Amino acid sequence: MHHFTALVTCLAVLFYFFTSVRVARARIALGVKLPAISGHPDFERVFRVQMNTLEWMPIFLPSLWLFAIYISDSVAAAIGLVWIVGRILYMTGYSRAVEKRGPGFAIQALAATVLWAGALGTIVWRLAHG
Amino acid sequence: MHHFTALVTCLAVLFYFFTSVRVARARIALGVKLPAISGHPDFERVFRVQMNTLEWMPIFLPSLWLFAIYISDSVAAAIGLVWIVGRILYMTGYSRAVEKRGPGFAIQALAATVLWAGALGTIVWRLAHG
Amino acid sequence: MHHFTALVTCLAVLFYFFTSVRVARARIALGVKLPAISGHPDFERVFRVQMNTLEWMPIFLPSLWLFAIYISDSVAAAIGLVWIVGRILYMTGYSRAVEKRGPGFAIQALAATVLWAGALGTIVWRLAHG
Repeated sequence: MHHFTALVTCLAVLFYFFTSVRVARARIALGVKLPAISGHPDFERVFRVQMNTLEWMPIFLPSLWLFAIYISDSVAAAIGLVWIVGRILYMTGYSRAVEKRGPGFAIQALAATVLWAGALGTIVWRLAHG
Repeated sequence: MHHFTALVTCLAVLFYFFTSVRVARARIALGVKLPAISGHPDFERVFRVQMNTLEWMPIFLPSLWLFAIYISDSVAAAIGLVWIVGRILYMTGYSRAVEKRGPGFAIQALAATVLWAGALGTIVWRLAHG
Repeated sequence: MHHFTALVTCLAVLFYFFTSVRVARARIALGVKLPAISGHPDFERVFRVQMNTLEWMPIFLPSLWLFAIYISDSVAAAIGLVWIVGRILYMTGYSRAVEKRGPGFAIQALAATVLWAGALGTIVWRLAHG
């Protein structure tokens, strides 16, 4: 069992859900009616935070779990927490201005890359060494 | 093995695929040419049904499987079926009018929340009790 | 363990990530500033390639893994490679013109359908035969 990775998965899903709630709130606050997805720059930035988080979920979740299975549950979970922290910084920065999304984005991209590369390296090693 | 949850996963993927097919059909029927994703309110509602289902897949699928692994295959699958039913009601309602998406949305959100909270609670309990 | 399927998962994630990088590059080259997601037909086609790949990830990844678990790791991985090749053809075609996305799309759709149908058939058979 991979309890820590399972816990971090629940937390990542919760954070991602929260980015969706912010879009629903921004719709009301800024008067962007469904089904439109544009119309106000403040709304569009909040919407892009959700979309970008969604876009990274199929990178993050498979990499997180392959790392957990092939290398270590607790190390995967720790790097997964770093990813969530980077995502939170990205969200708070981007909500203020496009330029302020940089540091958070870099942190989460680095965390995801470590998970992906660690998993890939170990899988290739296992295949090569039977 | 988690046969029932695997079956419900296949059904959820099929339903999600069907929401994409409806977008392709609406493009032709309403004359919204690729690569545009707007231009006609009827198209935009059908498009939003697909997008919203996509947005919920990374909430639903991990929660479904963690619930199945940590609690019960058959209970996870039963709640997963409720999620699909809620999604179908959301689709049929939203396709007619923005206001009619409410009940289906609430059902699927409740089903996903039960899966997520059940998984999280059990994971935390296992971590606390070794 | 499902080493080959894990390897193909890493490759699919890498390819998907690459479609995102192309969007970032197209933004700069064509002057489509964040948070906009439209404004230039060349940008919109590159954006649609990423979005469509994202849209297919929740179809492809669960089907790939259910096929691997229920049928065969190496066969799942081989069909997964065909999916990636189809995706690459779709990307290169669509980037040139909307009409040229057809063959690649058909290949990846066929590969995903084989994975999904194979998994579903085996799951139903297992449930029926205990």
